[in-house]
Amino acid sequence: MPELSTVGEFDLIERLASVLGLVASDRLVLSIGDDAAVWKAAGDRLTVATADSLVEGVHFDLRTTDWIDLGWKALAENLSDIAAMGCSPRYALVGLGLPAVTQVAAVEALYAGLRDCAQAFGCQVVGGDTVRCPQVVVHVTLLGESIPVRGDDRPILTRSAARTGDLLAVTGVLGASAAGLRLLQEGGPIDPDDEVLVEIHRRPQPRVNAGLLLVAAGVRCGIDISDGLLADIAHICERSDVDAEVEARRVPVHPAARGRFGEEALKMALGGGEDYELVCAGSRDLLAAASALLIDDGQPPLTLIGSIIERGTDHPMVHLLDLDGQPGPAVDGGYSHFGK
Amino acid sequence: MPELSTVGEFDLIERLASVLGLVASDRLVLSIGDDAAVWKAAGDRLTVATADSLVEGVHFDLRTTDWIDLGWKALAENLSDIAAMGCSPRYALVGLGLPAVTQVAAVEALYAGLRDCAQAFGCQVVGGDTVRCPQVVVHVTLLGESIPVRGDDRPILTRSAARTGDLLAVTGVLGASAAGLRLLQEGGPIDPDDEVLVEIHRRPQPRVNAGLLLVAAGVRCGIDISDGLLADIAHICERSDVDAEVEARRVPVHPAARGRFGEEALKMALGGGEDYELVCAGSRDLLAAASALLIDDGQPPLTLIGSIIERGTDHPMVHLLDLDGQPGPAVDGGYSHFGK
Repeated sequence: MPELSTVGEFDLIERLASVLGLVASDRLVLSIGDDAAVWKAAGDRLTVATADSLVEGVHFDLRTTDWIDLGWKALAENLSDIAAMGCSPRYALVGLGLPAVTQVAAVEALYAGLRDCAQAFGCQVVGGDTVRCPQVVVHVTLLGESIPVRGDDRPILTRSAARTGDLLAVTGVLGASAAGLRLLQEGGPIDPDDEVLVEIHRRPQPRVNAGLLLVAAGVRCGIDISDGLLADIAHICERSDVDAEVEARRVPVHPAARGRFGEEALKMALGGGEDYELVCAGSRDLLAAASALLIDDGQPPLTLIGSIIERGTDHPMVHLLDLDGQPGPAVDGGYSHFGK
Repeated sequence: MPELSTVGEFDLIERLASVLGLVASDRLVLSIGDDAAVWKAAGDRLTVATADSLVEGVHFDLRTTDWIDLGWKALAENLSDIAAMGCSPRYALVGLGLPAVTQVAAVEALYAGLRDCAQAFGCQVVGGDTVRCPQVVVHVTLLGESIPVRGDDRPILTRSAARTGDLLAVTGVLGASAAGLRLLQEGGPIDPDDEVLVEIHRRPQPRVNAGLLLVAAGVRCGIDISDGLLADIAHICERSDVDAEVEARRVPVHPAARGRFGEEALKMALGGGEDYELVCAGSRDLLAAASALLIDDGQPPLTLIGSIIERGTDHPMVHLLDLDGQPGPAVDGGYSHFGK
């Protein structure tokens, strides 16, 4: 049997789902494999639940991350998963692993970051536990709920609802978080023009309202951009059994990232991750209706960036057309958090 | 400001609850400080949510714990918290931290343990995430629900509902898990008479049905025995603003633990922890009614072990009467998971 470092994320998920032997039912709508698990609760709404861990030395470095920002980020990552389901966040539980030498003031700052982020997005941290651990681990579980269910329609965004012929669209602009991280890693003084990039990296703003509006407009396929635009579109392709085509020249790059890093900013927008914008798929009409709702809400409209095409091989593929509209190498959908 | 290792668990909890600024409301019934957070969902039931982490080298040792048992235990610990609320478990989310060199077969075994335990207690593992981490960390969040609410009564067991004059009672017998752990640590061959102790340590059986029956009988104060009988009674005293008196001669010790360890088995029953039985407080009549329901269900009745007395000092105290009924030193309610 192989080590984790040699198997892809999807392979691992399939194996574990198979061990659990989960069967989707009227009650359990979605389990392992999407941004969140979904089940029918009492009443007319669906409950969604998501969990994410941040590990010191793997996902963050306390030399470049303040404790209060770490708290914000740990919750924001989960809020983005709830946004990616098109649902409203409600209650969060926090599991902390901490070395015994951790300052109490540091833990309080982390909780202040959690609280600030919860307040900003209308949910509450209601419990959890704190245990001793050689390095800092922050694990957040967040529960949310959908808009009311009507008939057989499930009013959520899933990775599995993309169909050949759908268009792909994103909210907002991309690449700022990766640009901000680069500036922090370089360690020099931050130019006032670049502060916005660092701020987006430190305090990402998950698109909770945008997700709700996408669902309200009738869009049913979406994911948040956490691993990187192309990698996250590959997740949609994997679950929807399709491929995708993305036009690089249509991808909206954050202007400050472009100002600071020039052409490299496009790479940050395509692969940088942690933008926490949403990418969705649907018909031209549905995406136009969603854009109209976003504009009414004072948000930028969707940007069309590509389309869903028929699956070509066993493996999900995202085909990137370069700035001249020419085909480049396809991006393989396999992705591992354990690769060396 | 102090380090974590120098502050008690309750002090830390109070500080973090204060940062969050949580206010109990009609909707949010209980937050940080009990076995689980509780809120009103749609419909007539309360939702309960609990989270626990197990860290390699702190809470378990892979030299004495199989992966499948680790999975069972991680869920069982949370099931015990739901039992301690008198609720039914429903859905679990699992966050795993794993070194990249972990064998995929090991992760599958861990999931098999989670699945077996979930099936045994009528709940489902529905999602989670897996991240890279220098050592193994298993974090489980478990959601459950109460029996239907009627009027103003909250049909749950809390730590804060003990009143002066209440009696204290426990389900089952104690000390087996600590005895089983000792046998495993000694590393010698296990005598057939002792196998039951090792089995209880490896595969603890949380008292989910007992918790539900306690609530059905009208009992409203309870906690599970995870830190150790006296330490967990101290948790009740802390939250209920009372003290307690426990008679050592009444504490039911597991017969196999007594057979193997003699008088030392009483110490294991009083302080060993991980028994996952329940200790509850209530009037004599309520506890008798609960015992009757337990017997009808084929379970052993409650055993009376002591009583709730008025708070004597600022600090919660559990007074232990020795086997001759003489007062011994009181057990301080302060407890830290971070103490050196």
